[in-house]
Order: sequence, then C-alpha cells, then structure tokens
Amino acid sequence: MEKILILLFILCPVCEGFSQKVNTEDSIIIKKIYDTALLDGASYDWLDYLSNQIGGRLSGSLGAERAVKYTEEQLNELGLDKVWLQPVMVPKWKRGAKEYAYIETAPGESTITNVCALGGSVPTPHGGLKAEVIEVQGIEDLANFGKEKIEGKIVFYNRPMQANLIQTFLAYGACVDQRNAGAKEAVKYGAVGVVVRSMSFRIDDLPHTGSMNYGDTPVNLRIPACAISTRGANYLSNLLKLQPKLNFYFNQNCKTYSDVQSYNVIGEIKGSVYPNKYIIVGGHLDSWDLGDGSHDDGAGCVQSMEVLRLLKKINYRPKHTIRVVLFMNEENGLRGGKKYASEAKRKNENHIFALESDAGGFTPRGFSFDIDDKTFTTVKSWLPLFKPYLIYSFEKGGGGSDIGPLKRDGMILAGLRPDSQRYFDYHHAANDTFDAVNKRELELGGAAMTSLIYLFDKYSSAK
Amino acid sequence: MEKILILLFILCPVCEGFSQKVNTEDSIIIKKIYDTALLDGASYDWLDYLSNQIGGRLSGSLGAERAVKYTEEQLNELGLDKVWLQPVMVPKWKRGAKEYAYIETAPGESTITNVCALGGSVPTPHGGLKAEVIEVQGIEDLANFGKEKIEGKIVFYNRPMQANLIQTFLAYGACVDQRNAGAKEAVKYGAVGVVVRSMSFRIDDLPHTGSMNYGDTPVNLRIPACAISTRGANYLSNLLKLQPKLNFYFNQNCKTYSDVQSYNVIGEIKGSVYPNKYIIVGGHLDSWDLGDGSHDDGAGCVQSMEVLRLLKKINYRPKHTIRVVLFMNEENGLRGGKKYASEAKRKNENHIFALESDAGGFTPRGFSFDIDDKTFTTVKSWLPLFKPYLIYSFEKGGGGSDIGPLKRDGMILAGLRPDSQRYFDYHHAANDTFDAVNKRELELGGAAMTSLIYLFDKYSSAK
Repeated sequence: MEKILILLFILCPVCEGFSQKVNTEDSIIIKKIYDTALLDGASYDWLDYLSNQIGGRLSGSLGAERAVKYTEEQLNELGLDKVWLQPVMVPKWKRGAKEYAYIETAPGESTITNVCALGGSVPTPHGGLKAEVIEVQGIEDLANFGKEKIEGKIVFYNRPMQANLIQTFLAYGACVDQRNAGAKEAVKYGAVGVVVRSMSFRIDDLPHTGSMNYGDTPVNLRIPACAISTRGANYLSNLLKLQPKLNFYFNQNCKTYSDVQSYNVIGEIKGSVYPNKYIIVGGHLDSWDLGDGSHDDGAGCVQSMEVLRLLKKINYRPKHTIRVVLFMNEENGLRGGKKYASEAKRKNENHIFALESDAGGFTPRGFSFDIDDKTFTTVKSWLPLFKPYLIYSFEKGGGGSDIGPLKRDGMILAGLRPDSQRYFDYHHAANDTFDAVNKRELELGGAAMTSLIYLFDKYSSAK
Repeated sequence: MEKILILLFILCPVCEGFSQKVNTEDSIIIKKIYDTALLDGASYDWLDYLSNQIGGRLSGSLGAERAVKYTEEQLNELGLDKVWLQPVMVPKWKRGAKEYAYIETAPGESTITNVCALGGSVPTPHGGLKAEVIEVQGIEDLANFGKEKIEGKIVFYNRPMQANLIQTFLAYGACVDQRNAGAKEAVKYGAVGVVVRSMSFRIDDLPHTGSMNYGDTPVNLRIPACAISTRGANYLSNLLKLQPKLNFYFNQNCKTYSDVQSYNVIGEIKGSVYPNKYIIVGGHLDSWDLGDGSHDDGAGCVQSMEVLRLLKKINYRPKHTIRVVLFMNEENGLRGGKKYASEAKRKNENHIFALESDAGGFTPRGFSFDIDDKTFTTVKSWLPLFKPYLIYSFEKGGGGSDIGPLKRDGMILAGLRPDSQRYFDYHHAANDTFDAVNKRELELGGAAMTSLIYLFDKYSSAK
C-alpha cells in the first residue's frame, strides 16, 4: 500500500520553477472559469462580429484593418490595464477578379473546374494560361519525369492527404510542400504553371488556398500557381488517364503590392507580484480571403481575448503580467509574430510562457508543450484538474507559429489541441465561416486555455 | 526500480475470463482495422443511402420497412454466415399534418412559433387547442403553483439544458423528465396541454421531438404535448413576463395506430472456437421522423455493420460468434431490444459481450463499460492500444438502451462514447441529416468499435 502511495506522489512532483502543488482550490477556480465561459461567455459573439460583420482578414486588406480596430475596441471595454497596437509592416497580396479554369479534352470540349490562386502567386499572363498537364505525386516526382516531359507544361501536384493518418496535421504536413514549394521546384524543369490538389480529406468543389513562395526564383521566371478542388483534382486525374494530351486553362489576376502598415493588437493585465514577467496568450487576427476565417484563426483570437476577460470576471489577480496578443500576418509572412518577438527582445521583456490557439474552434482535447522533460513532469501533474472537462492529453510538441519566434531557453510554449478531424474540411477555403463553429466547442477551448494560464501564473515562481 | 516494474505489471493484469495479454500483434491488427476503415470504408456510403434515399425511419413507417430491407440486403452482400430478420411487433404513431402554433398576446395579435408533437402524444382537439399558459421550471414546480393556478391552462415546461454541464448527456438527463412525464404530471393539476422546451443547447428555431408517455392516465384524460424550439421558448417566456394572460394555440394531428409487424436485422459470423458464445454489436435502425436520423442512430447502425465487414476484410476469423444487430424501435418502445433479449434467453444463447453505438457519429473519444471492477482492470490495460487513435477514455457506465435488456451476471456491456458537444444540436430534430455527419469521424468510430470487438473476441476465454 505504501509503495502505491509513494508512486502516487511521484505523479504530483514539484520541480524547479514551480512553487507548490495544485490543490482543491485550483479545482474550484477552474470550475468557476468553465461555468463563466459556458454560462456567460463573450467569445462566440466576438467571433460572430469578426466573421459576419468583418469577414476575411487577409493582411493588408480592409478586413484586417477593421479587425484591428474592432478587437482593440473590445479589449478596451474589458477594463484591462493597457491596450495598444504594435505596428508591423505586412505584405499585401490581392486575389483580384475571381479565377476561372477549365479542362479542355478537345477543341471546344471543355469542363469548368474550381480553382483559386495560391497566396503569393503571380497572375497568369493576360488572357490566361493554357497548356498540357503533367500529373505528379509530389516534388520528388519531378525528377522522375525530367525536363523533357515537364517543359512547357502545367505541373499538376496530386498527392492527396493520407486518410489513414489519424493526426490530420501530419497528413497536411506530408502534402503541403506541394503548395509551398511546388512552383519554385517545377520551374526548374521548365513548367509554365502549377495546379495543386487542395489539402482536404473531403471530396468537394472547394479549392483551398494557402501560402506559397518562389524562394530565389528570379521575378521574370515565376510561374502562376493555383489550387484545384479535390473533386476537380480527381476529375482531372481520371481524364488524364483517358486523354494524356488534354489542356488545362486557368486565369488568375492576383497581384503583390508594396508592404503596408498593420498592427498586432495587444492587451494586458499587470502582474501583482512579477509585473515584468510575461505570460502571453494569442491567435492570429489575419485570415485567408475566401471564407471569413472563423476557425483559422478567428476562433483562436476570441478565445485568447476570452482568457483575459474570464480572469477578470472571476476576480483573479495574476501574479505575472498576462497579455493577449492578436498577431497579424501569420498566413503569409509571420511578420506579426516576428515583430512581437523582436520587440520583446529589444525591451528585454522576460516571457515565461506563451500559449497559442491556431488549430480551429473545435472541442479541445489537450495541449502540446514545447518544454523540457523535467518541467513537463510537473505540468503533466496538472492533467487531473482538466479531466472533468474532457481534456485528457498533454503531449510534447510545438506551440504555434506566431509564438515560435519568442522561444528562448527555459521558456515554455504551448498550443491548444482541439479535435482536428474536421479542421481541413474548412482550412483556407470558402466554407471556413461562422456557422462551422459550435458555440460550446469554442467556449470549452477558451475555458481550457484560461485554466492553463491560471495554473502557469499561479505556480511559476520567479526565475 | 523493481517496485516501479511491479506496478507496471499491475497495469497489465490478466484476470479470470481473459486468456492472455495484449501484444504487438494486436497493434498491427488494430492498425490494419483503422487503415481499412479510413481508406476503404463502407459506412459512409451506407449512411448516405439510409439518410438520403430512405430518410426518417420511425417504427411502423415505410422508411423503417425500407431500412430493414436495405440493411438486410447489404449484410447479405458481405458474405456473412447468416443474415436474418427477427420479427417484433412495434408501436405505430404518426405525426400527421404538420403542427401549427402561435402565441396570442391580444385578439388578432399573434406570432407563429415552431412546435412539433411529442412522440406518443394525442392530437389536439379538432380545430386546435388555445389556452392561457403557465410557465414552470420542471415537474417539481407544479406543486408550487397548485391546481388553482394550473387548471385549464397549458403548462410550459421551460427548464433549459444546463450549459455548464460538460457531459451533455447529463444535461439532457436533467431535463428530459419534462418531456417524458410532463403531460401525465400536469394533467393531475388540471392542465389542458403541455409545451416543452426543446432539449438543445443551441438557440434556434428547430423543435426537437422525442418520446413521452401517459403512464396510467386514462385515455379520455390524456392531454396533447408538443415541443417548442429553444428560440420560441425564450420568446414565449419573455412575452409571459410582459403579458401573463397571453394565449398559446397549437394544433397537432398525430395518432397512435395498432402495433405493426417489424424486425430486428441480424447478421453473424460463426465463431471458430466457441460458436455458441455470442458477441454482439449494434445500433437502432428506427429514428424519429423530423430529420433522417443520420446521427441518431443511422451512424450506429452503419458502424456496427462496418465492424463485421472490417473483420472479414482483414481476414480475421473470430473465435466467438459475432453478430451485428440493428434493433427496431429504440425511440418509442425499445421493443427490438427487449425482443432480442427474450429470444436470446429462450434459446439459452450465451452472450458474453455487447457493444452499442447510439450517441452520434462524432469523433470517438472512448467507451463506457457496464462491467465488474476486476475485469475492468484488464480491459483498461488495453487502452494504450487505442491511444494512437486518440481514444483516451475507458470509463465505467452504461452500454446502451437496446443492449440493456440482455444484461445478466458476468456479461459485459459497452457503449461507444463519441464527442458529445454537438449531439443535442441535432438530436430528434429536422437537422439530424447526413450533411451533419463527417466521414472521418464516422469511420474512426467504426474502427474503434471493431478494435474493441476484436480484443474481446481474442481475449475472452470460455466461461
């Protein structure tokens, strides 16, 4: 019996940097956080406004500008100790007139298909681009075909997301190089354009955009790149088997402009014991332009705002300064995250913990931590506090894109990990809209984040 | 160190009734099950047909009859050892012409509101029922008002589902007596009708039906009962504060007919070692009539069918006889579950394990087990096999309505426990339709069920 007790103690260790053990007071406070989130939450209404009154928030757009103003106003209404805008120059890319594409199996025999320009792509030549198509299963495949078979053609990257990968982000990670680097690699073989299968498990008609880059490809050699819907990709692939010499036509009118001024939106509650030590929570305020970015990442923004609102609402006075940061330009530049980190370094601000929510507003299932093993043992001892809220998983892993640049030795990063099975149904597509977010699921995420921030604030001792 | 090793062993015990420890072969087989489910699944297409080609399947309806035929055909195509229909007499209740209701604040001043008859209710008198309304917060509240204030009125049960209950089924359980027993209790105080707030967390315009019963209330004293949408309930409640003497009108044309013949649909793979010991997996084939019952419980049916298909597909030859049972009439009578159990008893069939899926086709998060503590320790030792598939929770609890009547000493019941946050958005309402089910989430549930059935088959030794 005693041996078992000893082992139970090992499950709740106290290690350097954490001042004491979690206790029943913590259960009570976490219950208060969840009750307030679910009975008197603000995040869903904020998201409604961001999504339905503002809409898509691509960096440099009017939507992004309005979102900065709106969230600054809302943070001001929370009675935080300080709310401000942190200037950051961001890229500006515009989609322009809607894209148009068709598959031509014979002169006069064509089928319209749904495509969208990839973010950062150049436009097609005036009047559009028509060429034969070569289907490949990924960048690695280009060498198999060689310049001879690729030159003058449109490369069609058709490696699908692997449905049998349970962790959907792994399936995404295994395909996304086609989108990111497909154009710059294909151009080396003389391709004239790139069509990339949308990164979604669903078979539907929605093209999914996302960033791409040309690397050091000279400006005059850059070729246009678009995404095709999964149904369109299947259709094109099937037609190619019958008719390998078919033509693909697409016309897109996107353009990159000069960088413009934008902002990270920041609010904070001053720490009562360690005002110069910072805990931050955030998401990214920019989104792609096709939908209204409700899951990616409106959800993360309103959940992060909700963290500070809930802490105030339950009258918790944090020991450390707690900041919400709504980062600008995660999608196509990460300028906001980099700017926040460089300013923090310049001002010598001591950030001890950063939490990001950027995986959709779905039922939260856990957190991932970028953390050393020893501290992780302590953090894992908090997990039982979350079990009544159906959070079962604390894993080691990344925190989030925007908080990544902040990372320094001893600092802990974390990411909210919601259920991800439906995430890529909406990701970067026209259906990433408010109706795809469930109020309870969103609120449970905000409550889980608040609880974790509370625990880090309470138990992190000065370093 | 040794002590820790001893404790690790305790985590993987072998207890009576289970023949050996799980091992890496099990991981390999479970991976094969998941791969097949996600890359080559049949459940989604079956559900498409059940939902979009057949639709609602209320007991005694044409839809239910067609669903029996369709699933029997599909099971026959799987090449099982035996497929048959088990006759069962079921109640037949029909909604009739669409319900109509309004709130009348003054003569000629009325607002239409959305209601639906509760399953099993009597119709309103010819021409409808109009009366004053008394709002109560539950059955317990009737005594507070007494006959004096209730007589001649429509009782409006408005206790909402508690949003701060994380387990949504608990929130449902805390309200559903209003629907089940609201009419038979209100009639004791002289009420003339009953309006029940829909059991949903969402505020929307959809009324949610569900069963109610009159107990021993004499037929001539039975009063009509309907559900009102949550938005309608809030509106009515607010109006009552301003105008307590307003009238509520509703007209419903439902009717109970004589019982009719229907069937449980059953298929089996004969056990290679214990052909006379049975493991069953099932869901209920009937549904309510407003939507097409995709989540409740089309999902559970196609997942259960998928269990047998997957076992055959991976060439697993079960030791015990594995049956899929699609139960008829869970929603308003449980006749199928009772009939199956009574036939099993009559034939002295030894059922060792039964698994039900009847909580929606959402991401599976675990299983609940009706099991003794000792055996549960063994079953819990299997949990690590499920973790790669994001199944983290084996809890003690109920199995399911349909398999409940089978329970006898030593037998184990289990229920699939999917994420439940959105379940009551759809439950018994017109939006419980195919588009609300995600293919991956459905398939992950079927794979989890197959894996559990495989483990029970492999490790249950003869008793």
